[in-house]
Amino acid sequence: MVVELIAVGTEILLGNIVNTNAAFLAEKCALLGLSLYYQTAVGDNEERLSETLKTALNRSDIVILSGGLGPTKDDLTKEVAAKVMEMPLVEDKHTRKRIEEYFKNSQSKVVTDNNWKQAFVPKGSKVLDNKNGTAPGIIMEKNGKVAILLPGPPNELIPMFNHDVFPYLNSLQPEIIYSAMVKICGIGESMVETQIADLIAGQSNPTIAPYAKVGEVHLRVTAKAKDEKEAKKMVKPVVKELKERFGKSVYTVDESVTLEDTVIGMLKEKGMSLTTVESCTGGLLAARLTKVPGVSEVFKQGFVTYSNRAKRKLLEVKKSTLKDYGAVSEKTAKEMAKNGAFITGADACLSVTGVAGPDQVEGKPVGLVYIGCCYKNIVTVKEYHFNGERDKIREWAAVSALILLRECLLEQ
Amino acid sequence: MVVELIAVGTEILLGNIVNTNAAFLAEKCALLGLSLYYQTAVGDNEERLSETLKTALNRSDIVILSGGLGPTKDDLTKEVAAKVMEMPLVEDKHTRKRIEEYFKNSQSKVVTDNNWKQAFVPKGSKVLDNKNGTAPGIIMEKNGKVAILLPGPPNELIPMFNHDVFPYLNSLQPEIIYSAMVKICGIGESMVETQIADLIAGQSNPTIAPYAKVGEVHLRVTAKAKDEKEAKKMVKPVVKELKERFGKSVYTVDESVTLEDTVIGMLKEKGMSLTTVESCTGGLLAARLTKVPGVSEVFKQGFVTYSNRAKRKLLEVKKSTLKDYGAVSEKTAKEMAKNGAFITGADACLSVTGVAGPDQVEGKPVGLVYIGCCYKNIVTVKEYHFNGERDKIREWAAVSALILLRECLLEQ
Repeated sequence: MVVELIAVGTEILLGNIVNTNAAFLAEKCALLGLSLYYQTAVGDNEERLSETLKTALNRSDIVILSGGLGPTKDDLTKEVAAKVMEMPLVEDKHTRKRIEEYFKNSQSKVVTDNNWKQAFVPKGSKVLDNKNGTAPGIIMEKNGKVAILLPGPPNELIPMFNHDVFPYLNSLQPEIIYSAMVKICGIGESMVETQIADLIAGQSNPTIAPYAKVGEVHLRVTAKAKDEKEAKKMVKPVVKELKERFGKSVYTVDESVTLEDTVIGMLKEKGMSLTTVESCTGGLLAARLTKVPGVSEVFKQGFVTYSNRAKRKLLEVKKSTLKDYGAVSEKTAKEMAKNGAFITGADACLSVTGVAGPDQVEGKPVGLVYIGCCYKNIVTVKEYHFNGERDKIREWAAVSALILLRECLLEQ
Repeated sequence: MVVELIAVGTEILLGNIVNTNAAFLAEKCALLGLSLYYQTAVGDNEERLSETLKTALNRSDIVILSGGLGPTKDDLTKEVAAKVMEMPLVEDKHTRKRIEEYFKNSQSKVVTDNNWKQAFVPKGSKVLDNKNGTAPGIIMEKNGKVAILLPGPPNELIPMFNHDVFPYLNSLQPEIIYSAMVKICGIGESMVETQIADLIAGQSNPTIAPYAKVGEVHLRVTAKAKDEKEAKKMVKPVVKELKERFGKSVYTVDESVTLEDTVIGMLKEKGMSLTTVESCTGGLLAARLTKVPGVSEVFKQGFVTYSNRAKRKLLEVKKSTLKDYGAVSEKTAKEMAKNGAFITGADACLSVTGVAGPDQVEGKPVGLVYIGCCYKNIVTVKEYHFNGERDKIREWAAVSALILLRECLLEQ
């Protein structure tokens, strides 16, 4: 089946917001095995939206529209879809009640007349409850074509898609889709692809699709089968094969788990605590770790020692080390990690020192970074050469520190 | 004039990447006063790309295509555009030489036969040099229609657009466009819009367009005139009026300057140094400050004191304060800021402590954050209530800390 995306909103056409919904929906459609050939963005304009929707319904089986479901006059996605598909709007009692409840529980108690507009839905359509806003989602079916209307804000669209639309789309197909995500860290994209070239070349069902991230590659394994049990059975041996090929580089097969989740989880399991001492990443590593709720159990403190003086004062890096080897050196990274662990009493300490650019430091090139990991009093230091601009180098350095910590935790 | 965007690439259709180019190009087109009604994404498929381009050229004056200019067989944007516009491909000597030079200076010395494909351009087209890659940009003009082909990677597309395409598009119009950006912090979007409702209602030339960011609102003032001097003259009084209305909340009128740039610049000017002590932001504030190249002149160190013990040990927050008021309290924020400045000898110290969620802490609600600023031994603490999820609350807290520091620096 062929699916198509239409994002509705003048704010997209003006470049006020980035259309992240498209990437989210596209990845889900790919996972569902739906073919997606076109994504369009149009403004809140009746004529152009109407034309765009007609074209899309003509060439695709399913059209997913996002945005333009708000309470104002500008918002006309529902009105246009109702006209194009000839399914007149009628009030949905359930939605009206839900909107009443929503306003009762929300801080803004004022319901304007506009809001009741959102309780109207195309006659005969399926209504999807919105747990994070007032606009309901809508599924319209007519003459073998489907239009799915979703609210624009990602915090409304994403849960609604996952909860209602994904199972609906899955049910439309003769076979259901099941997928697992094998997340790999510390190996480059091209190396990963080379190592699975034979699997990808021969694949039909299940399929393997690689997604490259900074420092990570995610492999999505997707199977089509008559039921979930069957599909899971097909995915299982492929995941096992991938785990065998990539060994310890696989850090999870759970899509919702991040690299920082994994590392924090490992520390928790071992009952170990962690400290960070950062120079060029300037807090980015600590910020990434503290994204994880409940991190306080293992992460008690971190230091940003940006200046040489701070490295000496706070981490007791030797003056002679800084003088003889420089702040960006293996020896400094080593002392930072070791002393950071000792001073705080943490079981593990990650250190990062490098040249993020744009200028060289100590005559050392932009992109040169040393990362140290002290764990159980053993310090491992690695040298890295990252490409790209300041932000990219800092991001790579922070991820690489997490990967190094994971390696040390696995080894000992 | 009407412009339209087409992004080419299977990786967009699969959701592997977010199409950020669209937002960048759309904002620039809006700034140029071009009307943009459609954005489309299509895959690297000859038939569908050809159809999409024909439709676009039919309904718009200018079509900007991004992506699909790579060296592989899959990349066929140039080939399709050449066919559709009937401008056959010919080798461009200058580009061939540029590609040779590019590989001479790059780490990968291996030029494959594919690469020479990139030296071919539609006959009679304008060639735009790519300073960050091998694919040239191309401007094709025929029968009153324009197609502009740009490389997909943002680090190639953005500089090429700013350097070559923006002036080109500006030159197509009878009047040139000039704009200034008035960046405001510490006032909410709706408040800003209310305060300029009269200006927006009566506007035609220059226009004012608001862009809401986390903790900031940017107002773009755009004038059309026969030359830049005239346009600048028109923009000037509006910028002056906005600066008068928003007073000290305006932190810059330079588009390239960020809030952290401004704050760091103020500290540099005063010869003052800064320390950060963070709890719930967990390094995010320090990470944001250290985005700024040359920050080392004023930012020497920062602390992430996530646990109560770290607050006591590293910042000497009193045990009784933590016991009686809790870690998330005005009093703790105050001691953190004051002691942070004292211990490090910094002239200023920012402290952040709050509940980022998802769970309450000390019976205090998610979103409650205290931010302290110690400057010249005077400590200011503010209480905030942020909405949203963990990431959003942390982001708001980090920006709000920068805004508070700016206020303190302005006052004293």
